[in-house]
Amino acid sequence: MKVYGVVMAGGSGTRFWPLSRQFRPKQLLNLTGKDAMINEAVARLKPVAKDGIFIVSSKSQREGLLAVLDESIPKENVLLEPVARNTAACIGYAAIKILKTCGDGVLIVTPSDSYIKNTEAFTSALSLAAKTAEEKDAIVTIGIKPTFPATGYGYIRYEKSEEPVKRVLQFVEKPDLPHAKEYLSSGQFVWNSGMFIWKASLILKKIELYLPDLYKELVRLGDAVGTAEEGNVLETVYPEMPSISVDYGVLEKSDGIYVVPADLGWSDVGSLDMIEAVRPSDSDGNITVGETYPLDTHHSIIYTGGKPICTVGVDDLIIVDMPDVLLVCSKEHAQDVKKIVEELRAKGKEELL
Amino acid sequence: MKVYGVVMAGGSGTRFWPLSRQFRPKQLLNLTGKDAMINEAVARLKPVAKDGIFIVSSKSQREGLLAVLDESIPKENVLLEPVARNTAACIGYAAIKILKTCGDGVLIVTPSDSYIKNTEAFTSALSLAAKTAEEKDAIVTIGIKPTFPATGYGYIRYEKSEEPVKRVLQFVEKPDLPHAKEYLSSGQFVWNSGMFIWKASLILKKIELYLPDLYKELVRLGDAVGTAEEGNVLETVYPEMPSISVDYGVLEKSDGIYVVPADLGWSDVGSLDMIEAVRPSDSDGNITVGETYPLDTHHSIIYTGGKPICTVGVDDLIIVDMPDVLLVCSKEHAQDVKKIVEELRAKGKEELL
Repeated sequence: MKVYGVVMAGGSGTRFWPLSRQFRPKQLLNLTGKDAMINEAVARLKPVAKDGIFIVSSKSQREGLLAVLDESIPKENVLLEPVARNTAACIGYAAIKILKTCGDGVLIVTPSDSYIKNTEAFTSALSLAAKTAEEKDAIVTIGIKPTFPATGYGYIRYEKSEEPVKRVLQFVEKPDLPHAKEYLSSGQFVWNSGMFIWKASLILKKIELYLPDLYKELVRLGDAVGTAEEGNVLETVYPEMPSISVDYGVLEKSDGIYVVPADLGWSDVGSLDMIEAVRPSDSDGNITVGETYPLDTHHSIIYTGGKPICTVGVDDLIIVDMPDVLLVCSKEHAQDVKKIVEELRAKGKEELL
Repeated sequence: MKVYGVVMAGGSGTRFWPLSRQFRPKQLLNLTGKDAMINEAVARLKPVAKDGIFIVSSKSQREGLLAVLDESIPKENVLLEPVARNTAACIGYAAIKILKTCGDGVLIVTPSDSYIKNTEAFTSALSLAAKTAEEKDAIVTIGIKPTFPATGYGYIRYEKSEEPVKRVLQFVEKPDLPHAKEYLSSGQFVWNSGMFIWKASLILKKIELYLPDLYKELVRLGDAVGTAEEGNVLETVYPEMPSISVDYGVLEKSDGIYVVPADLGWSDVGSLDMIEAVRPSDSDGNITVGETYPLDTHHSIIYTGGKPICTVGVDDLIIVDMPDVLLVCSKEHAQDVKKIVEELRAKGKEELL
């Protein structure tokens, strides 16, 4: 059976502002200093998703995406949503499109903005997950072996066994710290990586079962795929689709899900402070990009998009200096950057977003 | 007897970088939001120094100074040192120049970069000091009644008396905290404001006595004042003058000095954190200049020379964003800004200084 990659790349990543902007979302940033996040996601999929890789992004991000995207991805594999309708619609769109144009196959569905250090372990886990998804015609997820009691990730509880592929018992929302500690010590929990491996036909079956309103629109869309009407129908049906996550709409309701626990050196790079997971720091724990002069400065992230930055006597700070706006944020408050974005939007400062 | 003001304005103020620059020293900055510091110093002197106000600055600062300086100061009252030679030379130059062109008089010698809130009290203190300097032909200083056990200022110990003008017993260097606390509680100490009131003829007598090498050059200069050779002689003699402060070279060696203790709401505005002494803060204790968006931000000084600044979750921070360089500094380390300036100079980044 064929194996395809589906990279979900429609997010805006406001917690990465002002590095990420409306016209340059997080997945298009080169955070590692090597390549854009989306291209790193594509490169990681290639050894397993040998039959093609698809990108699902939004129409508004088209220009920025095509300027950055790995040239080996054909333009017809770039699916552009007219409006954002969360992950169930995004995955359904990819599934119906691939089913109609390529036939059925295993789809490795992955976010575009994760960082994975251990690429060989990732390839092995994906291969095993794809094989399982095909043989059992089941939903298979990649679970990340937890390294600390994270409260910012969802967890997956699985049935103990000697097999490398485990049966999922439960999806668990982001826990509080006592629960997170319990999960960590139990040895029966992994972090939910947001990566799911399943056949296109199974995705559509599950959506038909649990999200019939969405399924109806997907069928309309599927009927138009390959015709002159495809573009018009896409514009018509997308706004009608319910906005719901695949986790909540499908996975939490499904039985017979499998998980492949893996040790990937993974992080979700959800906010600016997570840059430390993807870039090496100097002997003072600082990560600096551009011309910087840190004095008595420790464990800080200093990013200049142009002019020199001098710092004196600061710790655990994030500084992002863009030509049109400056952000100075404590690492502890990195999650709250989205509040600044909301405030700027409320004040009509669209040009800064 | 005539009374003149002499404003010493030759400093560079590297602890105010990057607000202050080589071409725009601290005394030319408008820190209060009202007028440049030097013009505020001039305005404070006017009610007492009725016979003229002189500025001593450096040749290299001429252009910036004249662009900013109060137009009521005649150009011939702006004395420009060819090279910097500390305060004894600066005051000696002003004394010989005024003596030769205007005749003897009381000189109120003051720094250009202090902030004084209680201007009426200042006028009273100056009047009393000028009267005393004339009647007793003595050196009179203005002492600031201490409001906290400052370790960053020099102190003056005086003889207890009921008179408003006290006899100085001792000049004391910047103390450690235990000593500063002792001085504060004794009621016999004031801060050294760096303001001295004495006759031009007395200044020259004291320099002749304690700094004969300097006196020799001043005599050469004095002989040329008013002649076609004045400019050339100034260029020739200045580099020969010893570089020594008037405090160390004259005052600490002199007897019969008086001090007028005064409650002036004074601060020396020596470093960026002292901006809080001269500008009102908002309800979070922040002082912001320009377009700023402070979120969970407290007791910080945020100055933008152009683009918007957003801050999240930071306290006690100083941010100065200039078009060509950005400084982020903890208030606690405000004194260390000069180290950054030294580092930039050492690295040949003259254009940023």
